[in-house]
Amino acid sequence: MAARDLFHNAVRNALTKEQWLVTDDPLIIQLGGVDLRIDLGAEKLIAAEREGEKIAVEIKSFVGPSAIADFHVALGQFLNYRLALEIQESDRILHLAVPEETYLTFFMLPFVQLAIQRYQLKLIVYEVTTEEIVLWIS
Amino acid sequence: MAARDLFHNAVRNALTKEQWLVTDDPLIIQLGGVDLRIDLGAEKLIAAEREGEKIAVEIKSFVGPSAIADFHVALGQFLNYRLALEIQESDRILHLAVPEETYLTFFMLPFVQLAIQRYQLKLIVYEVTTEEIVLWIS
Repeated sequence: MAARDLFHNAVRNALTKEQWLVTDDPLIIQLGGVDLRIDLGAEKLIAAEREGEKIAVEIKSFVGPSAIADFHVALGQFLNYRLALEIQESDRILHLAVPEETYLTFFMLPFVQLAIQRYQLKLIVYEVTTEEIVLWIS
Repeated sequence: MAARDLFHNAVRNALTKEQWLVTDDPLIIQLGGVDLRIDLGAEKLIAAEREGEKIAVEIKSFVGPSAIADFHVALGQFLNYRLALEIQESDRILHLAVPEETYLTFFMLPFVQLAIQRYQLKLIVYEVTTEEIVLWIS
């Protein structure tokens, strides 16, 4: 399996295990002359009488040779996607999915923590082999 | 000449023509566990009794197969670099250098204009063949 598919499927399966219904794979947003392609859209029905919770998830593997270069890309995607969702689907909350190994190392660096805080990134930390979500960080 | 060097030299020469002194090529910022590498640092002495104006410039070519993918990277770099400069060199103003051709097409799209406004990107529009700066957008 290609590396991209491995990480993609791990997050998709992990969400399904937590009772999320994947509704879009990918979630395509067309807006203001551009096509944005977010990895997943999912919904959770909390209770019959309540509105379903909706998320969009951009899945990152951080397998590139430079973690900081991968982080630049992730931040740019996240902020463009969040801006587009704000206009077109304001009830859908965007998350960045990162592997647990990357979260416990690179994401602990003070600069990365600062950027997460400044730009209010919401994270889903996942474990790729067990296909489980370890942590939701809002 | 490699494409990267062609665009890099065009902006460097264009700044020099406008009386900027390139002081760093690249400008390296080490902060909070990461090394950030911004393409250029430059200074302009406005008058003997005034402080020199200082800029940092990240040079983008937008020659990739997808302009929106290039824009995600540019936005992520810009926002991480600006955050780092704010802490370590708060008197240095970051700019993103974009080719005129890209500026007149992709950058005119409503979504891109919205992102520029929202994230307060400062642009230097350059012409690669004449090695000139066409526009400064703050």
